[in-house]
Amino acid sequence: MRIEDALLRAQQAAEPEVGRGQLATYIPSLASVDPGQFGMAIASCDGSVHVVGDADVRFSVQSITKVFTLAQVVAAEGEQIWTRVGREPSGNPFNSFLQLDQEAGRPRNPFINAGALVVTDRLQSLTGDASGALRDLMRRESGSDDVDIDAAVARSELEAGHRTFAMAHLLASYGNLEHPVDEVIGQYVAQCSLAMSCRELALAGLFLARDGVLSDGTQLLSPRETKRINAVMLTCGTYDSAGEFAYRVGLPAKSGVGGGILAVIPDRGVACVWSPALGSSGSSAAGLAALDAFTTYSDWTVF
Amino acid sequence: MRIEDALLRAQQAAEPEVGRGQLATYIPSLASVDPGQFGMAIASCDGSVHVVGDADVRFSVQSITKVFTLAQVVAAEGEQIWTRVGREPSGNPFNSFLQLDQEAGRPRNPFINAGALVVTDRLQSLTGDASGALRDLMRRESGSDDVDIDAAVARSELEAGHRTFAMAHLLASYGNLEHPVDEVIGQYVAQCSLAMSCRELALAGLFLARDGVLSDGTQLLSPRETKRINAVMLTCGTYDSAGEFAYRVGLPAKSGVGGGILAVIPDRGVACVWSPALGSSGSSAAGLAALDAFTTYSDWTVF
Amino acid sequence: MRIEDALLRAQQAAEPEVGRGQLATYIPSLASVDPGQFGMAIASCDGSVHVVGDADVRFSVQSITKVFTLAQVVAAEGEQIWTRVGREPSGNPFNSFLQLDQEAGRPRNPFINAGALVVTDRLQSLTGDASGALRDLMRRESGSDDVDIDAAVARSELEAGHRTFAMAHLLASYGNLEHPVDEVIGQYVAQCSLAMSCRELALAGLFLARDGVLSDGTQLLSPRETKRINAVMLTCGTYDSAGEFAYRVGLPAKSGVGGGILAVIPDRGVACVWSPALGSSGSSAAGLAALDAFTTYSDWTVF
Amino acid sequence: MRIEDALLRAQQAAEPEVGRGQLATYIPSLASVDPGQFGMAIASCDGSVHVVGDADVRFSVQSITKVFTLAQVVAAEGEQIWTRVGREPSGNPFNSFLQLDQEAGRPRNPFINAGALVVTDRLQSLTGDASGALRDLMRRESGSDDVDIDAAVARSELEAGHRTFAMAHLLASYGNLEHPVDEVIGQYVAQCSLAMSCRELALAGLFLARDGVLSDGTQLLSPRETKRINAVMLTCGTYDSAGEFAYRVGLPAKSGVGGGILAVIPDRGVACVWSPALGSSGSSAAGLAALDAFTTYSDWTVF
Repeated sequence: MRIEDALLRAQQAAEPEVGRGQLATYIPSLASVDPGQFGMAIASCDGSVHVVGDADVRFSVQSITKVFTLAQVVAAEGEQIWTRVGREPSGNPFNSFLQLDQEAGRPRNPFINAGALVVTDRLQSLTGDASGALRDLMRRESGSDDVDIDAAVARSELEAGHRTFAMAHLLASYGNLEHPVDEVIGQYVAQCSLAMSCRELALAGLFLARDGVLSDGTQLLSPRETKRINAVMLTCGTYDSAGEFAYRVGLPAKSGVGGGILAVIPDRGVACVWSPALGSSGSSAAGLAALDAFTTYSDWTVF
Repeated sequence: MRIEDALLRAQQAAEPEVGRGQLATYIPSLASVDPGQFGMAIASCDGSVHVVGDADVRFSVQSITKVFTLAQVVAAEGEQIWTRVGREPSGNPFNSFLQLDQEAGRPRNPFINAGALVVTDRLQSLTGDASGALRDLMRRESGSDDVDIDAAVARSELEAGHRTFAMAHLLASYGNLEHPVDEVIGQYVAQCSLAMSCRELALAGLFLARDGVLSDGTQLLSPRETKRINAVMLTCGTYDSAGEFAYRVGLPAKSGVGGGILAVIPDRGVACVWSPALGSSGSSAAGLAALDAFTTYSDWTVF
Repeated sequence: MRIEDALLRAQQAAEPEVGRGQLATYIPSLASVDPGQFGMAIASCDGSVHVVGDADVRFSVQSITKVFTLAQVVAAEGEQIWTRVGREPSGNPFNSFLQLDQEAGRPRNPFINAGALVVTDRLQSLTGDASGALRDLMRRESGSDDVDIDAAVARSELEAGHRTFAMAHLLASYGNLEHPVDEVIGQYVAQCSLAMSCRELALAGLFLARDGVLSDGTQLLSPRETKRINAVMLTCGTYDSAGEFAYRVGLPAKSGVGGGILAVIPDRGVACVWSPALGSSGSSAAGLAALDAFTTYSDWTVF
Repeated sequence: MRIEDALLRAQQAAEPEVGRGQLATYIPSLASVDPGQFGMAIASCDGSVHVVGDADVRFSVQSITKVFTLAQVVAAEGEQIWTRVGREPSGNPFNSFLQLDQEAGRPRNPFINAGALVVTDRLQSLTGDASGALRDLMRRESGSDDVDIDAAVARSELEAGHRTFAMAHLLASYGNLEHPVDEVIGQYVAQCSLAMSCRELALAGLFLARDGVLSDGTQLLSPRETKRINAVMLTCGTYDSAGEFAYRVGLPAKSGVGGGILAVIPDRGVACVWSPALGSSGSSAAGLAALDAFTTYSDWTVF
């Protein structure tokens, strides 16, 4: 089936799920988003982009940024980050503090919050401005010069961020932060508060489907590094529903509490879907349905 | 690179690891295997088979059987088994009893022991002889009529099987076994004690790379079911090192404490590697090195 | 206040709680007991016994037996049992399998099921008939020659005993049972199925308030051993509500799912209360209220 | 045996343990204390005080303060605090974050760090200056007007306090702190940094042995409240070795990482022992040995 048609089917499959579920209420400014929105974009390796619905409405990227900061750190210094963070699924969300404590402050993987804090901390060391470096990458790859941090979301997250502070202090107690807790959290929250559309995110992630090659033809990551980041996404990208996600969608993907999901189809392209209401697993319910249908109809899957 | 050459490279890469690590000492009859052995076989979807080393020596298949019994249950009645067993990574081996208890007797996935007991229990209901049904499938697909259960290994496992009995009784306490504990364990231990060579196992698993089509052209699983079993293998097939395995090898795979690993490359073929000494994660250390090298040189990977 | 009066006050305080809560439904023959019953007996060190309500109705002693088998093992060989079982509160009921597994098969304390199985196993080694030895002690101390095991309860428990079997097999997997699982469980279930009245149990436990001296004046335990068993009862005797129980009642005590609670007031006497309906903590709700009131009015407390 | 003699025996029993074990290295200024010191004081309800060794050397009171702040909160408003903190043993130190998270931010008991933070937070609401209120109580009851906070210890703790900050932020994320994290931790660290001698602490705690009556004859706590605080001390006062402590010593007690232990013998008096080196359970090894011997020789025990 042609991409355009698979995309329409995906939209239809998602429709009953749009608006069902919960908004991420713990971040006040995300709780006021209209839950009835849905958008999806497919950026192909050949350069074409197809979209449906609200694919040009910007939303809060949140945890999807974790893939990009990881890519930047690996690009800068290779495998070194793995001494400070693991790459195994965490199994249980409620275990996060327990695991971090039992495993001597080394987070299970770079996509749980503790791991992402470590990656941001390292990117801060490498660049002096982690969230700025991320924003610049996003602007270049999406082709949108005005991609930026939503300051209201950032402020709102910082105020509601006691769990994040708790996690960062626990990391610091094990010596796994290079910068002060406040600085790391400031960068982390700024990073998560980036606002982008499905189209922009799909374009920005295209290097993950192209063996690491950026839009200008330069190599951000080696093919091997790219494959490995995709592998970590598949096993750890959707938290404790990574198994379910792999089962239904079968693609490396990263979700965020803003309702976005980025999925990579190696050598083919990148899908980005967005709908704000979250299912029980913390990923967009409509987004999951859309990707499930898209992979079924397009046969873009890794298995 | 040609398969033959990639296979030789894999053998070379594995060589320093052969014999390093631990034999599975908790099953006495596995503890006496010569740890210096190494074999590997690639069965391609086009029907060709390439082998190196001890690829025709039979070893104890153990947990690799779990993929095949799951396939048989799904083939017989579709998705029903998922009401009794989940498909998420378990996160931590030591959590196995805790998780099973907290999650009301529903094992995390079909590849941890508790989950495999449930699958075997269901296969027993469907066939009246779970281990016999498995053996028959293995004989047909491998083309070896004398594939059989190693009675000494089975006896040895039964005697050392207090943990397995504990797990089965815990399942039974939640009503998640249809047959008496002794019967389920008898079938389970027989199933695990199957002895096969790399060549035989690679051939037997070929349907997983061929959208569910068996050697005689009939369909055991639908393409969708096949993809899904591959997805569960990728996220859960190598226990608590599934993330590491995906990172290094990037293929759906299932390991066993006999030292075998079966890996599926969709639409291309199946790799089976064997070397008895186990690394810290409970999978063959030499096998992991061989698969890592093979995917690198052959570019047979899903990412 | 005189004991008689404190006992009446205790009965009044318990009245609203009688019949409230759950019967122990997992043992079928306990589920059919009339939940409206309530009895209480105080045996004083001076030899007098005071009773109210159904103090002469026999009920299933269940876990209260664990104090007596522990006393018998300590009497026979002193502190040796502590190499195989700990004496710390377990913190969480749902952790029982996890803790046992993480702590290499050494149960937290002798009053959780895993610990009691180890004690029974040891008593079996020391006597050749653990439940018989217990029954004999109970008969002698209570002065009732017809105290006996309720065979229907025992049978009923054995059939519903998958969790107990799971626990025993896990102990066995760590080499912490001297006898076969079936034998230990047979003895354990027989022991728990003993039927006694409040009056009989209070008399049987009197040695715990008398520095270890039995009814015939002989010494079962040294004063130091007696104090120590009392201490373990206070910290571990009522499972995960030991803290709450100490807070409200302030006495060493052991409860059972049959609805009985035995409480020791050193140098003064022993209280035994019974009412079948269990509160959320698994101890008799009316029994807890009665003991709370009794200690308040009698000033028989250790703090 | 007379108190003086029992005290000498206690000192003798402790001698081989003095200096054995670890200093609390995570607080730099505690790590430089001379580990060879040992002191003990017994304050009797009749007003007499007996001492041996370094009983007049001040040390860092640390967690022993948690009993006093709890007493002050209960004195001010009764049982209300128990809606925000439990009174069950926690079972496992490493579980502290897990339990707090699973139990919705309600700490297990007031003597683990999370619980003590909640008590201090409440005392801050009740007094406007929690650590000042505590210091005043300590001065009055010990009769030493110059009892004060050791500012160097407080500073040192604050700098090393990432775990405490993590815990406080986790409490705050569940809405279980009334004041800002920084304010609560400031008060908490000041409170812990109080420096007092064995003699002073024994006198200060005497109300716990006297049914709540202070040195000036006024009632801080009711007899019932006093008994209950003693009960919580017995089950929870020495962390995950509460069972062991009850078994060996048999008294309500609270230990601190400064090496002090306060033990209450209801209606008789209070013992305070100090020696800086800590055993594996985090309580003073020599202190534990001294109390064990003292209760054996004096027969001052609750069991």
